[in-house]
Amino acid sequence: MSDRLAKLKETLAQLNRLYMISELLYWDMRTIMPEGGFEGHAEATEHYQTEAFRISTSDELYELLQELSAPEEWEQLDDDWRFIVKTMREEQERDRRIPEELFSRMVAAQTASERAWEEAKKNSDYSIFAPHLEKLIALTREVKSYTHPELEIYDALLDDYEKGMDSATIDRVFGELKEGLVPLVHSILAAEQPDDTKFRVTYDLDAQRKVQKLLLTYIGFDWSKGTVGESEHPFTLDLSATDVRVTNHFREDNAIDPMFSAIHEGGHAIFEQNVAPKLAGTVAGGCRYLGIHESQSRFFENILGRNINFWRPIYADVQKLQPELADISLEEFAREINHVRASMIRTAADEVTYCLHVILRYEVEKAIFREGVSVAELPALWNRKMEEYLGVVPANDAEGILQDMHWSDGSFGYFPTYLLGSIYDGMFLEAMEAELGSVDELLAAGRIGEIRGWLNRNIHQYGSTRRPKEVLREVCGREATAEPLLRYFREKYKKYYNL
Amino acid sequence: MSDRLAKLKETLAQLNRLYMISELLYWDMRTIMPEGGFEGHAEATEHYQTEAFRISTSDELYELLQELSAPEEWEQLDDDWRFIVKTMREEQERDRRIPEELFSRMVAAQTASERAWEEAKKNSDYSIFAPHLEKLIALTREVKSYTHPELEIYDALLDDYEKGMDSATIDRVFGELKEGLVPLVHSILAAEQPDDTKFRVTYDLDAQRKVQKLLLTYIGFDWSKGTVGESEHPFTLDLSATDVRVTNHFREDNAIDPMFSAIHEGGHAIFEQNVAPKLAGTVAGGCRYLGIHESQSRFFENILGRNINFWRPIYADVQKLQPELADISLEEFAREINHVRASMIRTAADEVTYCLHVILRYEVEKAIFREGVSVAELPALWNRKMEEYLGVVPANDAEGILQDMHWSDGSFGYFPTYLLGSIYDGMFLEAMEAELGSVDELLAAGRIGEIRGWLNRNIHQYGSTRRPKEVLREVCGREATAEPLLRYFREKYKKYYNL
Repeated sequence: MSDRLAKLKETLAQLNRLYMISELLYWDMRTIMPEGGFEGHAEATEHYQTEAFRISTSDELYELLQELSAPEEWEQLDDDWRFIVKTMREEQERDRRIPEELFSRMVAAQTASERAWEEAKKNSDYSIFAPHLEKLIALTREVKSYTHPELEIYDALLDDYEKGMDSATIDRVFGELKEGLVPLVHSILAAEQPDDTKFRVTYDLDAQRKVQKLLLTYIGFDWSKGTVGESEHPFTLDLSATDVRVTNHFREDNAIDPMFSAIHEGGHAIFEQNVAPKLAGTVAGGCRYLGIHESQSRFFENILGRNINFWRPIYADVQKLQPELADISLEEFAREINHVRASMIRTAADEVTYCLHVILRYEVEKAIFREGVSVAELPALWNRKMEEYLGVVPANDAEGILQDMHWSDGSFGYFPTYLLGSIYDGMFLEAMEAELGSVDELLAAGRIGEIRGWLNRNIHQYGSTRRPKEVLREVCGREATAEPLLRYFREKYKKYYNL
Repeated sequence: MSDRLAKLKETLAQLNRLYMISELLYWDMRTIMPEGGFEGHAEATEHYQTEAFRISTSDELYELLQELSAPEEWEQLDDDWRFIVKTMREEQERDRRIPEELFSRMVAAQTASERAWEEAKKNSDYSIFAPHLEKLIALTREVKSYTHPELEIYDALLDDYEKGMDSATIDRVFGELKEGLVPLVHSILAAEQPDDTKFRVTYDLDAQRKVQKLLLTYIGFDWSKGTVGESEHPFTLDLSATDVRVTNHFREDNAIDPMFSAIHEGGHAIFEQNVAPKLAGTVAGGCRYLGIHESQSRFFENILGRNINFWRPIYADVQKLQPELADISLEEFAREINHVRASMIRTAADEVTYCLHVILRYEVEKAIFREGVSVAELPALWNRKMEEYLGVVPANDAEGILQDMHWSDGSFGYFPTYLLGSIYDGMFLEAMEAELGSVDELLAAGRIGEIRGWLNRNIHQYGSTRRPKEVLREVCGREATAEPLLRYFREKYKKYYNL
């Protein structure tokens, strides 16, 4: 190993420590910290994130990366390290253009805004959050004008979350999907709905925690490299590839949503736990592309988890842990987890209307950044679109514009990655079945490990070394298309709704 | 405020951030971290502790403290800041004498040793821990030879945990106590023992968590400034005065020990939560004297918690939460929480034999440091003393020499502070009743808030600004004496055991 590569590894160790501390502070803040800890955690978070930013944009690192790119050094690097050096250079050249003072303002604004959003949501009072949102939008535009001067603003936002993806491609695939889904959802909502009375009981919370443990274990979550917590909104976070954490939010009136949150976050965690160890602690360790990441959480949650065959080997055990399900047959359970409703809340939405929730958010974001729609107009715009796509109108802003935390930390351009994930899933399912045969049969036989193995081999191990469009080409041999997902939806709902 | 004082406050903010991060890493490691997180947490802990050590022993801070001690600056300081500057100077002069390389070795040895102890205890295999213990003893001697060259080694150990306390005083008060207790414990153990069959049932774990919440709330734990977790061994830790955390360890076979752990750790936390805010983030904020600290946890646990009157206002609610107690009367419950047994485990010991467990450890530590008894001889020495004081011999090292975590991180000289705490409690009870009247009556009337208020006013608010001997003089008007504690024990057990 050259001295310069050794030096880069040292810098990465230093940066990783700072990232780990920031993640630990975030984890603690969201899962357990009392109110009185806020000030100290916020101050420390800002400090360590600023320190990481300073190192990652330093002249010293800049020169080191230049030197490693010179022919005599470059020749000694293997493909992974070439990817790492190239990616770090690209990101650094972008980040170095952000004035340090602007970055600090952004971090401080995010922290304050996250808190305001929590307060606003609790009181269903958009006016508490609106000034923070406006500030974040302005700061985001300012940051992007430094980092991506060459890109149209919405493409610049996407670039952070799904490298190489562009709004033209998204417009095309979301368009294909919307065209097929709107009539499908309308037929489903007009069809006879299953009776869900038996599910409306009070579910023991501790039993739900035990069911989560069973589900995570079953899908292959590695407990020696991960743990669980509870927070307002479920999330997955990694302190390192060997310390990957998921949260959930349990409620007495609903035991099913938390099961699917567990499987969803478990899917994210399994990705992180299975990246090749040689990539650990670099920009290639872990997956940085949120659409690809989301494709894995949603593959576990929907493609596997909402399939009746997923439950055949474990349903009796789940019933034992959660006795409120004792009188509900596997068929009734499967029917309910595929129950389509015109609901207000994205995270509680069924698999198919979920797509429309995301398309709505994508359109609202384009309205903000492209059409200059004002912050004051957003609640009404949101509500109009809800009525148009799902035929329902939020009763208040807590179940409307305030429902998601994403905009509270300035994550604009993030939402479309959820739907890209599902679109990729249709494509992955097709490719997987071509190789392994019927997923229904594998699941029914409890051979979920083979499915996970396929995902590990084809997707997880590469971490970030393959970019999204490259993953699709390598794994599916084609460009992004919504066609397999649409076909999957049509087949599934034909069966459940006699369409 | 002078520029120099402002500069000191800046340095303290920097140090506090580092301490907070170290505490957070410790909290996480003990309560939730998966196995795969160990390496990263250990590396980060060493890094941040070393950084804090470097700053706190730096020439820059040394000079700043010198300057603040010069007449023109000193005159501008109030009493609190004078105490802070003086204490920091004293500590710095000691710490600066420790070679940085020795400090790093100590931190690394502590981390490795803590882990070895966990493994050793799990397998009841002293040989796993012994080499680590030997190394820590040697490193401790080496460190003390730099920090306290003027003190005899055991007095040097005490100085870290109970400033100004000396082994001559401890020998005197422990001597008084041992002389009175050995015959008392022998009479108790020879008397008729209560029937505890009804308590030997399986207790729901989640119910225990709810009882803990009730108890902490009842004694006055402030949930806006604190939270709870679960760990192998209960502890209290503060990230700041407004973020104070306690842990517990719940077991299905015993619901009573965890109740008293909750009250005990709650007593520690209430102390930290009630130090005057003006002292926050300095060497005077929080209590640094472990005997004084322990006096507060044990006052809540024993003087209040083991008094039948403590339970009168809440016992029915506890029974509702923990239905296994439904058929147990308040009198039976009070009898059981004052049941004296010759047990192996200090943390599960009753209030009176507990004293002998501590005297044993104090004597073992003196044997190690004063008499040079070897690490190999310790298990046998431990077992001989157990037989002598309590008439029982541990069946294995897990319930003998390995039972406590304290020596695993090099906390030698810590154990005596537990018993000093109880000895102070006898004195505080006497002083409190002289002012407030009967504690029995206050408790029975649910007026525990007045008791807590007395402790807040007389002890907590001062943080560390009064040293242990000073606290006794100010609050009790006398020197340390075991006489009030002995009297309290004699009265209590006379009643419960018809002596």
